[in-house]
Amino acid sequence: MSIITLTTDFGIKDHFVGALKGKIISDYADARIIDISHDIDLFNVSEASYVVGAAYNSFPKGTVHLIGVDAELTRENRHIAMQWNDHYFVCADNGILSILTRKMVPQRIVEINIHDRLPSGSTDMDVFVTVACHLAKGGSLSVIGKEIQSLKETNELQAVVAGDKNSIKGYVVYIDHFGNCVTNISQKLIKEVARGRDFEITFSTKTIKSVKESYSDFAVNTKFSLKDYEGEKLAIFNEAGFLEIAIYRSNPQTVGTARTLLGLKFRDVVNVVFK
Amino acid sequence: MSIITLTTDFGIKDHFVGALKGKIISDYADARIIDISHDIDLFNVSEASYVVGAAYNSFPKGTVHLIGVDAELTRENRHIAMQWNDHYFVCADNGILSILTRKMVPQRIVEINIHDRLPSGSTDMDVFVTVACHLAKGGSLSVIGKEIQSLKETNELQAVVAGDKNSIKGYVVYIDHFGNCVTNISQKLIKEVARGRDFEITFSTKTIKSVKESYSDFAVNTKFSLKDYEGEKLAIFNEAGFLEIAIYRSNPQTVGTARTLLGLKFRDVVNVVFK
Amino acid sequence: MSIITLTTDFGIKDHFVGALKGKIISDYADARIIDISHDIDLFNVSEASYVVGAAYNSFPKGTVHLIGVDAELTRENRHIAMQWNDHYFVCADNGILSILTRKMVPQRIVEINIHDRLPSGSTDMDVFVTVACHLAKGGSLSVIGKEIQSLKETNELQAVVAGDKNSIKGYVVYIDHFGNCVTNISQKLIKEVARGRDFEITFSTKTIKSVKESYSDFAVNTKFSLKDYEGEKLAIFNEAGFLEIAIYRSNPQTVGTARTLLGLKFRDVVNVVFK
Repeated sequence: MSIITLTTDFGIKDHFVGALKGKIISDYADARIIDISHDIDLFNVSEASYVVGAAYNSFPKGTVHLIGVDAELTRENRHIAMQWNDHYFVCADNGILSILTRKMVPQRIVEINIHDRLPSGSTDMDVFVTVACHLAKGGSLSVIGKEIQSLKETNELQAVVAGDKNSIKGYVVYIDHFGNCVTNISQKLIKEVARGRDFEITFSTKTIKSVKESYSDFAVNTKFSLKDYEGEKLAIFNEAGFLEIAIYRSNPQTVGTARTLLGLKFRDVVNVVFK
Repeated sequence: MSIITLTTDFGIKDHFVGALKGKIISDYADARIIDISHDIDLFNVSEASYVVGAAYNSFPKGTVHLIGVDAELTRENRHIAMQWNDHYFVCADNGILSILTRKMVPQRIVEINIHDRLPSGSTDMDVFVTVACHLAKGGSLSVIGKEIQSLKETNELQAVVAGDKNSIKGYVVYIDHFGNCVTNISQKLIKEVARGRDFEITFSTKTIKSVKESYSDFAVNTKFSLKDYEGEKLAIFNEAGFLEIAIYRSNPQTVGTARTLLGLKFRDVVNVVFK
Repeated sequence: MSIITLTTDFGIKDHFVGALKGKIISDYADARIIDISHDIDLFNVSEASYVVGAAYNSFPKGTVHLIGVDAELTRENRHIAMQWNDHYFVCADNGILSILTRKMVPQRIVEINIHDRLPSGSTDMDVFVTVACHLAKGGSLSVIGKEIQSLKETNELQAVVAGDKNSIKGYVVYIDHFGNCVTNISQKLIKEVARGRDFEITFSTKTIKSVKESYSDFAVNTKFSLKDYEGEKLAIFNEAGFLEIAIYRSNPQTVGTARTLLGLKFRDVVNVVFK
């Protein structure tokens, strides 16, 4: 129970991340610190939520995930700590955790109330570090906050099942380093709604007929090598469990990407249509 | 006493940083290595000094800070190690440490003289690694160098108090990931010169009437939410103790930044004018 | 024997690297994880090979190097693990290791065959993590694969010695963070072919008369300072043992680089001509 992960929009040039780690080590010398990302778009709670959601489950139970995105304590954004799926999350109540926990109720949420106990001049990160180290040492949530029942709701776009259950409408919520476009339509939701039916994926004027098992799942025969499929569009369920529109061996500099070749952008609509 | 931090201009794509860490571990398997930054502008000693100065104090006393910026041993740049504020710094004498230690005398400085003791073909980083590991293991400065009394002076621009003590003239010395502009005017200096007087901040044709307590320190009433203040200019003392010109919730892609909205650039003048 | 290094083309914004580390820690809590690079150009096996080759030797013997570039298991690319120079490498057989090990035969290579033993839905990285942790714990290659005798050949450009032994023709294989151009001509090869002869370096219409001992190895006299040499072209053997064309104190933003000032690009020809 001594791992602390970091997800921030601090970038990697400034002193911010180094200082944050120094504070953690100063508080808890044995903490194991792992970076998830420091390149979240500035103040982008949707992106922070996706990245944390895609990574946290690869860590052991009991890991503490500190999220430094839009973290300033304000009248509108309380500081919170949450236990969920036996992981801990320390964050501002700015939508990151409500997007993350949709459809699966947290085990426990507290509003952090230790601010007055810290030295004057303490920053938001000082608060998060104190709480994260406390939890990583095995401390309880009740010591650092008062239990609350719900997180702040956001108006983040959600995947919606049509009234006739014949389609699902979702959105591109993340574009990754390979230019692949991740939607907010989960494999789980498609399976529930499909009830065994086939489906195709549509967006803009394009259609993809099936979901592949892997990026290189092409029916290669002796006439072709995989290289001949470079630049082909495909759909896949990514590791995080979401439908992703991709280009085989995409590369922004050469082959092109789902973004450049298919014109898909952040927030664009993607439909799953059942037959 | 086993933490070694790294600040370099090596970038993160090449093998340089990985190799540096490999050398440290090979010399001292228990060293705890923490990155401060590897994205310092190439050979920019002023930037390196600011970033190290803003981060070092978050680490425990006894931490060793290895600085790989403009590190080549030349006739003009000796290799040095320094104890200051109970931290250790290993660096070339190229201005980084003289800017850092301005107004606070180092406890001890040595000119590193172990070069002849290392295998032939050893690099500047081999020297720094050997020294840093020696210090991290608790070794003394005198074993690896001969004491010197002063650092090389630089002609780096400094904040200057006017003869009549009615103003301070400083400069933008760092622009951070959020586009905020950090000056070299410290909160401490303003307090000393102010002697209780109010002041305003001027630059170019613009004026800021006061320094905020926090980024979101707006007199929000029931008619407005914090979101309505996005893009407002403000001044604040940052965590490193320096006056910073910022934009509330700045974002280079959307809202804009102090750099784009106010036209502030590296080296631009910022004045503090007392009333 | 508990160090695992990571070299990937995953980038540092997405969750991929964080998740990879989480998986390693979940499998082997005591693993020491060191990043070499996550910014390899997408699917660029040549670049991956250069970066791993330049870094691995700085780590202690027994270190495990996990390489996540073009790692998908396909009919064409098997998963392999290799012992070489007493280091371990886990990778797809896509050319990275055959470029790396040219002229020095690996101690042992196995084709990884544990895929069926992992839970269904396991990814390529799950396989690599399992193998890397097994090796880092001191496990043997034979447990995780079946021995093979050779790696897949690539058509990667190699440095070629002329029939008359009066010249070597090589190529720019890597351009580093400083804009310096690394060739695939090794110091060792030049020494073998030179047999004591002098040589000069030519590329495009340019000639460099000698190889410097260090970047600042200029015959500085009292009339000049090193600063006067900024922007000078030079040749040097870099830390990795390869001939490099560089600019003294190069900087893409100011001084310029070997790329911008000399017009050298990836794959361009560089000749060593003996006298």
